[in-house]
Amino acid sequence: MRSKEVHLIERPQGLPTLAQFRIAQTELADPAEGELLVQNIYLSVDPAMRPRLAGAAALNEAMMGGAIGRVLKSRNLLFKEGEIVESMNGFREYFISDGKGLSTLKPDGMPLVAYMSVLGLTGLTAYGGLLIIGALKEGENVFVSAAAGAVGSVAAQIAKIKGCYVIGSAGSDEKCRWLKDDLGLDAAINYKKGELRTSLKAAAPNGIDVYFENVGGEHLNAALPRMNALGRIAVCGMISAYNNFGAVSEPVTTLSNMIYNRLTMRGFVFYEFESKRAQFLADMKGWINAGRLKYRTTILRDIEQAPAALIGLFTGMNTGKMVVQLAEG
Amino acid sequence: MRSKEVHLIERPQGLPTLAQFRIAQTELADPAEGELLVQNIYLSVDPAMRPRLAGAAALNEAMMGGAIGRVLKSRNLLFKEGEIVESMNGFREYFISDGKGLSTLKPDGMPLVAYMSVLGLTGLTAYGGLLIIGALKEGENVFVSAAAGAVGSVAAQIAKIKGCYVIGSAGSDEKCRWLKDDLGLDAAINYKKGELRTSLKAAAPNGIDVYFENVGGEHLNAALPRMNALGRIAVCGMISAYNNFGAVSEPVTTLSNMIYNRLTMRGFVFYEFESKRAQFLADMKGWINAGRLKYRTTILRDIEQAPAALIGLFTGMNTGKMVVQLAEG
Repeated sequence: MRSKEVHLIERPQGLPTLAQFRIAQTELADPAEGELLVQNIYLSVDPAMRPRLAGAAALNEAMMGGAIGRVLKSRNLLFKEGEIVESMNGFREYFISDGKGLSTLKPDGMPLVAYMSVLGLTGLTAYGGLLIIGALKEGENVFVSAAAGAVGSVAAQIAKIKGCYVIGSAGSDEKCRWLKDDLGLDAAINYKKGELRTSLKAAAPNGIDVYFENVGGEHLNAALPRMNALGRIAVCGMISAYNNFGAVSEPVTTLSNMIYNRLTMRGFVFYEFESKRAQFLADMKGWINAGRLKYRTTILRDIEQAPAALIGLFTGMNTGKMVVQLAEG
Repeated sequence: MRSKEVHLIERPQGLPTLAQFRIAQTELADPAEGELLVQNIYLSVDPAMRPRLAGAAALNEAMMGGAIGRVLKSRNLLFKEGEIVESMNGFREYFISDGKGLSTLKPDGMPLVAYMSVLGLTGLTAYGGLLIIGALKEGENVFVSAAAGAVGSVAAQIAKIKGCYVIGSAGSDEKCRWLKDDLGLDAAINYKKGELRTSLKAAAPNGIDVYFENVGGEHLNAALPRMNALGRIAVCGMISAYNNFGAVSEPVTTLSNMIYNRLTMRGFVFYEFESKRAQFLADMKGWINAGRLKYRTTILRDIEQAPAALIGLFTGMNTGKMVVQLAEG
């Protein structure tokens, strides 16, 4: 069976370009005893893939990434044909696996694509980052950067569900309207207009207790002086830094605000919250079904679009989760 | 009674200058009913005073600061003549008080000047910052910046007592020799020689689990990429930032290291550890009496020297605690 896959052929220095990727064809043998063949349906496209391109991702091999697929053939007792499986074997159409690192997904009546975002690692990242790392308390003041992004939009809505005053930043007026009108945020800041420090100060009359950090740089410089005593900064990502190997990113000059206000800044990764996954799924499904938590997905189709989808994360192409769809769900 | 005191007469923009301070004379009345008269013996001179000069410290008034003094006259039932008292009424020779904010000090056989450093707020800052905020565990790898300073030298020695591998940085070869030869650190880096990032990498073959941060800027940039997974950065101070209102301080560009390694950075202030003070004093006296914890004090004499002592903190004048002595202890 022929399968197309995305290879990185040259390490990007700044923003990746299409020419640094290649769509390669491979031929897959039939699964051997203990193996299974999976067809990927959705590929997850995440900012955190960018730092891996600088070193961890191998050149001229299929790139890794979160994916949801369907078992087409199975000679492995743990997986049945037709089942849906999650894996890190994204950025390719089909793959053969011995089952390691794969887990079966029961959609439970929810759309499959939701498991790419709100019900998947994206949602778990937002949920754990805000509630566990950020130690959010009801009624606090919350700032979420990149709030129209996949993780940010979930974090901002959970904060609203928890009765908080929520400020979000995004890179366009259209995204800001979505944040305020559809997601119900209290304030939305277009960080490309005016001075972010000034806008954030105006939007946060009672300061900030929890900052859910996705951007870094200018955003962190603006947030630190606004943090209240004993505030928490949950560092999910710093997308402004990912393409700045040698290029300009606003450096951080306001860290001394951490001292007198006794701030905590904590980086985190979703797998720290694995033990909370059942509670997470129950909460999220409840909120989605009650219409309290919404999500958008930016879907590009076909494996050839995967490099453009990845680059698009850094140019503001997506609202909500960026996904590449390869087959019907 | 005549008393001299230090006034700030102009707010410094960068490194303070002597001309921005004035030694003023005041006339103190005898203590009224409920009041007492205190003669300061030692004034504490601390980096954290610098940020206050930018706004919190009033102009043309006696500056505040930690001090130890002797009760000369008392018409307050809680204080007896001859007792030693701690206060924040430093930077002056004598003062009248109603007793609020004063606490009696029983030297318990230790030299009075030790209560200015290892047994005072300086020591409590190091003790709580390392053991509570840094959550130090036996045998970990520890980096202390400004390790020849008042707080740093205590933090570094406590880490050695706890069986850790300890790296310290300081601004001269003489200070580095003190750290290695007298205090027993495993490695000492003169940050003014060569590239700090390179020196720290070489000095930390097993990475860093706890960074006790006193400096910021270049030091933080060097430490962040060396931090081990789940490492803690206890932010006591950022002395490199204090004089940089508008001037050059190396900005922080390596914060994205916090994410994958799930680092915690936490600013703190000594008063968070007040409830641990009895344990702190017991531990510290034990370590000092056993010869396991040493301290140096840089003593300038006379109130006229107080501005120079404060400025000297930022030019590397002190090893250990900087103190101004006004009377015999």
